[in-house]
Amino acid sequence: MTHNRYVVILGCGRLGSYLANRLSRDGNSVVVIDKDEATFRNLSPDFSGFRVIGDAGHMAVLKEAKLKKADVLIATTREDNVNLMVAQVGRKIFGVPQVLARVFDPKREEVYAQLEIDTICPTSVAADIFLRAIANDAAKMRGKSS
Amino acid sequence: MTHNRYVVILGCGRLGSYLANRLSRDGNSVVVIDKDEATFRNLSPDFSGFRVIGDAGHMAVLKEAKLKKADVLIATTREDNVNLMVAQVGRKIFGVPQVLARVFDPKREEVYAQLEIDTICPTSVAADIFLRAIANDAAKMRGKSS
Repeated sequence: MTHNRYVVILGCGRLGSYLANRLSRDGNSVVVIDKDEATFRNLSPDFSGFRVIGDAGHMAVLKEAKLKKADVLIATTREDNVNLMVAQVGRKIFGVPQVLARVFDPKREEVYAQLEIDTICPTSVAADIFLRAIANDAAKMRGKSS
Repeated sequence: MTHNRYVVILGCGRLGSYLANRLSRDGNSVVVIDKDEATFRNLSPDFSGFRVIGDAGHMAVLKEAKLKKADVLIATTREDNVNLMVAQVGRKIFGVPQVLARVFDPKREEVYAQLEIDTICPTSVAADIFLRAIANDAAKMRGKSS
């Protein structure tokens, strides 16, 4: 796997910090942006990247994170609109090659796709896993009764 | 796939309502429990199951949902403690054969496993998908430059 990529992560909540810790440990250069400084305690002691405190809606904050240099931008906040806006800015203004965004509302996925932003909807993913588990269990029970 | 199973879903938020709509459409008997009646508008117009308004911490509410008859119990609220408690009650007191729970804090997954409750942590799942997408993109880029 290629390491040493420059990754900017928006949001240091559960998902953002998990990714930051993991990508940092794997040898990538990681910058995490969050407007709430308290979220940075989600980072592990061996996190070797940078922390930027600020509102990602401000160009100055994105510049401080050196978004222009980024190979990857990941928008992980709990707000779809924030993720969409910053992802677009990253793609169109800063020319980031790979942009990924978390999107809670599955109906928005189409908009993101048209803007060439890769999305993941945790709700759909979780639902699919639950449905598979139920189907597998049903299959097992059929096996037993036959 | 076996249809016509009796499924009780705790929580009618994004995940709970998605599962309820899907499982109802597939021909299962579905009961959704939520203490907030407003969440039921997440159910689609063709949802053919039952709605129970109430706190799942009360036995009367679980009895009203006929949990004893259930083939499957899925706990989907945003609160790990609520999901764990109701999942345990479903397994131990009502003898539900399959119990699934959403868990936000990955550290709690071990506790659930010991209680024989299947869990899914949307944060871990989403993170893994993001990490795979980044790794794939890196592989593509290496392919181009070689």
